[in-house]
Amino acid sequence: MTDGRAVEELVVGVLGGTGPQGRGLAVRLAAQGQRMLLGSRDADRAAEVAAEVAERAATVAGNAAVSVTGGSNVDVAGAADLVIVAVPFAGHAATLAELATPLAGKIVVDCVVPMGFDELGAYVLDVEEGSVAQQAAALLPDSHVVGAFHHLSATLLEDLSQPTIDGDVMVIGDDRASMDTVQALAGRIPGMRGIYAGRLRNARQVEALTVNLVSVNRRYKVHAGIRVTDV
Amino acid sequence: MTDGRAVEELVVGVLGGTGPQGRGLAVRLAAQGQRMLLGSRDADRAAEVAAEVAERAATVAGNAAVSVTGGSNVDVAGAADLVIVAVPFAGHAATLAELATPLAGKIVVDCVVPMGFDELGAYVLDVEEGSVAQQAAALLPDSHVVGAFHHLSATLLEDLSQPTIDGDVMVIGDDRASMDTVQALAGRIPGMRGIYAGRLRNARQVEALTVNLVSVNRRYKVHAGIRVTDV
Repeated sequence: MTDGRAVEELVVGVLGGTGPQGRGLAVRLAAQGQRMLLGSRDADRAAEVAAEVAERAATVAGNAAVSVTGGSNVDVAGAADLVIVAVPFAGHAATLAELATPLAGKIVVDCVVPMGFDELGAYVLDVEEGSVAQQAAALLPDSHVVGAFHHLSATLLEDLSQPTIDGDVMVIGDDRASMDTVQALAGRIPGMRGIYAGRLRNARQVEALTVNLVSVNRRYKVHAGIRVTDV
Repeated sequence: MTDGRAVEELVVGVLGGTGPQGRGLAVRLAAQGQRMLLGSRDADRAAEVAAEVAERAATVAGNAAVSVTGGSNVDVAGAADLVIVAVPFAGHAATLAELATPLAGKIVVDCVVPMGFDELGAYVLDVEEGSVAQQAAALLPDSHVVGAFHHLSATLLEDLSQPTIDGDVMVIGDDRASMDTVQALAGRIPGMRGIYAGRLRNARQVEALTVNLVSVNRRYKVHAGIRVTDV
């Protein structure tokens, strides 16, 4: 899949790359010189957002070469070495169901949160497979599914006036080599660390904790994230 | 319930106070001068552990008056102003079912984690009510149930050679005044903060995240906790 290449050499695709979380991760990684492909159902929209992300990343990239290209989700799934899934939960299953072939053999990093809102605030949506990451694993039997990047504020990721992100990335999965790669990818963004946080069967609460961070944000008027202490 | 008294004035009971989490919280709070009652099914055992906890707390208490007394769970439930539930999950429902009357009108702080272990490590046990805290709320309809203190390492709490704890306490509940009290109680332990983290319906993932911290501990040989960033 990654053929033993260093994480810096990988082309990283983002499905749903035109949404806030996808854009935020893309601009931060692109600024470090990671080659990025932004996918969307609408390839023209993806190309447009990719140009904006490239321009913004270049303003903080220093000597790093910035490369951000847009395309359809299916083209990005086929062309990237590693793919981040950042689509809305409502479109998660349908999007991945069509991409099992282009994503075969690849690391698929799922950051989707099953979250709903009602008059009492945010709550967790049930996922039949137990978690969104497990749903991805069921739909992509030949991919290496890893859960990560759930707890990062899209607002902070997109705010390039702050050079570092104060937050750890909990990385969940069953394939050690894939998790090592994703932890290294998370570590490319200044301030962030990728922390091993358990098997895929324990993904549900990591995804769902984002709902609590939304409650924190509302109460304290902040953009909360998580640090794992003593590591 | 707390009659508007400051948190420093409250007598804090711990059900299951002879276990590691109960002892750890008790010794840290007692060292700050909080009056503590340790409960156990075995009142003699509770008295024995209370004496040990008092002795250890006194070594780091400075000018604070240390008061730790042991008793049966039912006596502690009746005598305390606020009660922390730190029993094993296996005994959670049975313990609380007998204490609805003495706990009526009181703040009940549940820190119990529904965790099992098998050959793959730790995993989350299903709780019919959705979470342990919601189970407590169902069994104690006249109490103010709050979830808190799940993510603190008992090992670090009991290690008084470290004067501060590097970790936040996510506080979950539906009654604002009770949550304010529990946040203030958490904040009495040097280094710790009590952070509002959502309603009781979002308790499940906060409890279950402890399972992931166990995975972190095993991988990194640490005693992991959580900090909420940007607060």
